[in-house]
Amino acid sequence: MTIQFRRARRDDVPAIVGLLADDTIGAGRESIGAGGDVDEAYWAAFDAVDADPNQLLVVAEGEGEVAGTMQLSFIPGLSRGGAWRAQIEAVRVSSSRRGGGLGGAMIDYAVGEARRRGCALVQLTTDRRRTGAHNFYERLGFESTHVGMKLVLGPDGS
Amino acid sequence: MTIQFRRARRDDVPAIVGLLADDTIGAGRESIGAGGDVDEAYWAAFDAVDADPNQLLVVAEGEGEVAGTMQLSFIPGLSRGGAWRAQIEAVRVSSSRRGGGLGGAMIDYAVGEARRRGCALVQLTTDRRRTGAHNFYERLGFESTHVGMKLVLGPDGS
Repeated sequence: MTIQFRRARRDDVPAIVGLLADDTIGAGRESIGAGGDVDEAYWAAFDAVDADPNQLLVVAEGEGEVAGTMQLSFIPGLSRGGAWRAQIEAVRVSSSRRGGGLGGAMIDYAVGEARRRGCALVQLTTDRRRTGAHNFYERLGFESTHVGMKLVLGPDGS
Repeated sequence: MTIQFRRARRDDVPAIVGLLADDTIGAGRESIGAGGDVDEAYWAAFDAVDADPNQLLVVAEGEGEVAGTMQLSFIPGLSRGGAWRAQIEAVRVSSSRRGGGLGGAMIDYAVGEARRRGCALVQLTTDRRRTGAHNFYERLGFESTHVGMKLVLGPDGS
């Protein structure tokens, strides 16, 4: 099967949300209707990502279907000699396509895009529970040098 | 001492780079001249950060001096219900001001700014070697849920 990587389009949103929900950890965080309808917040998020030249939402398409997705953020900063960094977030491969090398091809694509934009560093965080993912990224050359910390803000300002 | 938080200005760049270098782990990554001169790359990085409405480089100023710095990145995305996230990077407190509560005040400011912009999550990574920092962020409510992975790209494309 030929896989093509491309910038996500607005009509990919339901498929992308479907992939985000097609995941043990992510499932409880996403809401998707039985008919594949997605909340307005997802459309607004797509528009914000799409309008920002430093965000690139990618889909991997094969045989007319969205088989994978990831978001790349390109972040300028003063540290490390004024280096740009690329950040990979929300990586998902369709459950029916896992184990076929698509994940590795996606990360290769991300690293290539990071180089093309002059980034000195590619970074990501993965949930501690995804031990398979840690091994996967280490095989691709990533080093587990950092602790990733999160603070969830309550919708009520708590 | 009264500390004021504000958006960094271009003439803060040498002081900010000085803070980035005033750190055990960061020292080897930054270059700063004996007279406080900084490389062109830092000025270019400042301009890229300053031009991006989703980046906010903050300085903590006290008695006319830059006592601390951090960079906030506001990242739109589809995951977690189309949530915006705030990311804190490059947090530094002047070595002469450490232990006085400035770090906690900086993170409070960052969390407040994240709420103001409607973010559902605040995230950061810290080097595994900064064990004191892990405890610091945990006291502020952050949870160490993720592994932070980095891939350094060689300047020669290696």
